[in-house]
Parts: sequence; structure tokens; C-alpha cells
Amino acid sequence: MEFKTQLMNYVELVNKKLNEYFPMIDTTNKNLFDAMAYSINAGGKRLRPVLMLAAYNLFREDTETPLPYCCGIEMIHTYSLIHDDLPAMDNDDYRRGKPTNHKVFGEGLAILAGDGLLNYAFEIMLKDALTHKDTRPFTQAIYEISTAAGVNGMIGGQVVDIESENTLIDGSTLDYIHLNKTAAMITASLKAGAIMAEAKETDIKNMEVIGRSLGLAFQIKDDILDIIGDKGKLGKDIGSDMDNNKSTYPSLYGLEYSQSRVRELTEEIEIILNSYGNKSGFLRDLGIYLMEREC
Amino acid sequence: MEFKTQLMNYVELVNKKLNEYFPMIDTTNKNLFDAMAYSINAGGKRLRPVLMLAAYNLFREDTETPLPYCCGIEMIHTYSLIHDDLPAMDNDDYRRGKPTNHKVFGEGLAILAGDGLLNYAFEIMLKDALTHKDTRPFTQAIYEISTAAGVNGMIGGQVVDIESENTLIDGSTLDYIHLNKTAAMITASLKAGAIMAEAKETDIKNMEVIGRSLGLAFQIKDDILDIIGDKGKLGKDIGSDMDNNKSTYPSLYGLEYSQSRVRELTEEIEIILNSYGNKSGFLRDLGIYLMEREC
Repeated sequence: MEFKTQLMNYVELVNKKLNEYFPMIDTTNKNLFDAMAYSINAGGKRLRPVLMLAAYNLFREDTETPLPYCCGIEMIHTYSLIHDDLPAMDNDDYRRGKPTNHKVFGEGLAILAGDGLLNYAFEIMLKDALTHKDTRPFTQAIYEISTAAGVNGMIGGQVVDIESENTLIDGSTLDYIHLNKTAAMITASLKAGAIMAEAKETDIKNMEVIGRSLGLAFQIKDDILDIIGDKGKLGKDIGSDMDNNKSTYPSLYGLEYSQSRVRELTEEIEIILNSYGNKSGFLRDLGIYLMEREC
Repeated sequence: MEFKTQLMNYVELVNKKLNEYFPMIDTTNKNLFDAMAYSINAGGKRLRPVLMLAAYNLFREDTETPLPYCCGIEMIHTYSLIHDDLPAMDNDDYRRGKPTNHKVFGEGLAILAGDGLLNYAFEIMLKDALTHKDTRPFTQAIYEISTAAGVNGMIGGQVVDIESENTLIDGSTLDYIHLNKTAAMITASLKAGAIMAEAKETDIKNMEVIGRSLGLAFQIKDDILDIIGDKGKLGKDIGSDMDNNKSTYPSLYGLEYSQSRVRELTEEIEIILNSYGNKSGFLRDLGIYLMEREC
């Protein structure tokens, strides 16, 4: 199947499943669900769920089994964006061209919508895990996601990121932020997919190595687009990192080195994926697609 | 063993285990861990962990097995207090006589410390679940906790609570708030304890009934203390519900009826617990202790 078709198929599967978790019914907590659904449906690329599906499909053929966990990781990613955008954090009014959650629903509800999404993610994943005869691989996958999202992963990275604003940081601190804030969840997507497919330890380890490189490449590319990207395509102002005095890969190492680093990391991924033959074509193409993206 | 001694023993076990999760070491994320530990060590009664231990001990004798989950539910309870106190929510400067988290660490870090505690709770519980040969009862216990803490439990109750400020609500809305914001987590503590002890379905159902009554009684007593309590003992201003135009049991039904309702609910609990004989003495005494408490 052509790459773009497969990508659309995966995204469609995830969106359909996400809709099941946000039915349009009038509950006592309509406002809370509306606020949660608003950010879930605000135009995310579904990168993490797609990675999870693709990693699972390296080892097993069905697409049904990992879907609750794909939705779980997307909910966790979404909550982190809602909280990141709050006035007490990055204080952003727009994301992907739409008003941020707190601009629409107010700060109090935005905080609770974020809390709600994080908690709901665990709820739906745990509920699904209990439907399987052997709960272990699924409990293991949820654990993998929880550590990546947590204090020694995404949240930890976000704290150091906030603390580093308006200060000149070194390369190792920048790597810490990128590896924890971004790469950890990308790695967990790939690893959780492989774990649910009961892949071998060496394969799970390969997913970890790929995730780290892909996550770093993804974040460096983000930083590059913040300088040379197209505002219309990105749906947000460019130059915001510079305005916020944020240290980035381009600001520390220059644009040219940053671009060659993205290429280098993408090649590292390809080398590992090649050992899986044709089955890994989609993931290889996805790496190139992310490297060449304009938004 | 005398009730107070047993209570102190349980609290001591929980505090010791909590300390293991917050070691005093210098990590990259020292500030985040400091903020999380500050609220964990801010004088909580450890009610939910104690209930979990007591429910577990109705069916099994060891105290080691449920401890990670006791810590997990205390972390979730603590995160909810940190977020509740934020300026965008209740805007409280003091809790239990100490400055609230955001007054000490700032709003951004307080939000992330709350997120961190919620996520860390799942992380430590899932990690423990994987150490057991049969992960199912433990995954089931975590699921029970997650639904109680979530959008159809504690978070849902909190949203309706915030939306109800400055409006006159009816008894059924007040019950919705109390049952979700407070009773759900108390019920989950008891149920999760019984589930981990692999108690029978009827016993788990009994824990649910007890939890609902105990949770309601606990919240009504809280509302009563907000009117007739002693500021020094409570560690916070009294009359704050009235100042915030919050509808409470006493404001809707009067103080006398509220007090008799607490007694009635406590008696309902006793009737069920009596069927467990001597083993349930601690939980019976705890019900009375909570009914008679002055803070």
C-alpha cells in the first residue's frame, strides 16, 4: 500500500476509536467532556498512535488490539498541550490555528480537562487490559506509557524546559529536554506497540533505539520550522522560540548542522528498520516524511 | 489492638512507604520532586490508604501487598488538592495551616507537581502489579481507582462543584458532588483493598455500599465543621463555604438534620461491618472516629 494511503488509514482508525470515547450525549458533565473533546479534535497529527499501530504491525497483522492504547497515548499527549498552553506556563492563545483550551473554556475547566484526559487515558487502557485473558503484556504496555509520560519523562522534561527559559543552556540540558519532553512518548508509542504484539526483547530494544532517534529528529525539525517555517502551514507564529528566549538546536548549533543532524538521525532509523525487510516500509517512509515535513 | 494504636500503625506504614517514593536525592528534577513531596508531607490524615489497608486486612493478614496502591491513592488525592487550591479554582492560600503548593512553588510548577503526582501514582501501581505472578487482581484494583478518580468520579464532581458556586443548587446536585468528589475515592480505597485480597464478589459489593455511606458522612461532617469547627484545630478558616456561597448539607437541610444524617450513615456502615465479626472492629471504630472528629 502506498505510504500516504496507509497513513490516512491509520489516522482514520484512531479518529474513529477516539470518537467512541467521546460520544455526543448530554451527561451531567457535558462541559468537561466538551472541553476534553475540543482539544482531542483540534487537528492533531496522531503521530504517536500511528507509531504505535505501525510498531504493532511489524509483529502482528490486526489493527484492533492496540487501538485503546493508541487513544490513551493521544489523550496523554493532548492533556500535556492543554496544560503547556496555560497562562502559568507558555501562555499561548493559539495552537494549530485554533484558540487554546483555556481561551475557550476558561482556566479552571482547562486544568480539569487536562487532568480528565490524563486520568481517562489510564481508565480506558486499564479497562481494555482486563478484557484480555493474559493481562500482563497490556499492563506492561500501560506501564511503559506511564513512565514515558511521567516525572522521569515528559513532565520532567517540561519542568526543565520551563526552568530554562530566559537562560542560556548547554547542549546536554537541551538534549535532556528533547529526550524527555518529546522523545520519551514517541519511544513509548513504538515500544508499547511491540510489547502488545509480544515481540522479542531484542525487537523491543530496537523500538527504543528508533524512538530515541526519531523523537530527537522530530523535535529538532520542530525547532527548525520555528525559524524557517511557513506561518500559514504551521498554524502558529514563527520565531516564537526566539521571542521566548528559548535555547534550541539551531540557536546552539546553527541551522545547517541542525538540518544535517535530522538527516543523520533519520538514516540511523532506516538502518535498523532495514533489518525488518518490507514489513517496515511504512515506518521508514514515515521517518522520511517527518524529516521533510513543512508543518 | 486498641483502635488508636492500630490507626497509628497503619499511618506509619503508609508514611514509611511514601518516603521510599520520594527519596531525598539530588536529581535533575529536584524542584519538581520537592513540590510533589511538599504536598504529600503537608499533614494529610492518610484516610484513603488506611481504609485500603483495613479493607484488605478484612480478608488477608499481611500489610505489605497493598502498600504501593495505598501510596498511589494518596498521591491522587494530593494532586487533586493542589489543583483545587489554584487561583483558577478555589484560590486558597492555606491548607492544613500551611501555604498551598502554588504559594510556595508558583502556579506553573504547582500544576506540573499535580500532574506529576497523578501520573506517578499510576506508574508505581503498575510497576508493582507487574511484580505479581497474576497481575489481574492488581490491574483490576488500579482500574477501580482510575474510574473513581476520573471524569465520572472525582474530577466530574469537582467540575460540577466549581460550576455550582454562587448558585443555589438542589439536594440531588449536592449529592452528585459529594458522591463523586469525595465518596468515589473513599469507596475505591475499600474496594481496591478487597479486590487485591481476592475477596468474594458479595464482599466487594459490601465495600462499595460502606464506601458510599462513609464518603457521604465524611463530607457532611466536613461541611458541619466548616460552620461549627475550631479554626485552630482545622488549620483553616471556618465559614469559607458560606463566604464562597457554596451550597452544603447544613445550608440546604440545617445543622441538626445534617448531624443526624451523619449518625444514620455511620449506623448503616456498622450494620454491614457487624457481619464480619471481630475482624471489622477497626473499620467500625474508624467510622465512629470520623463521625466524632473535630478536624
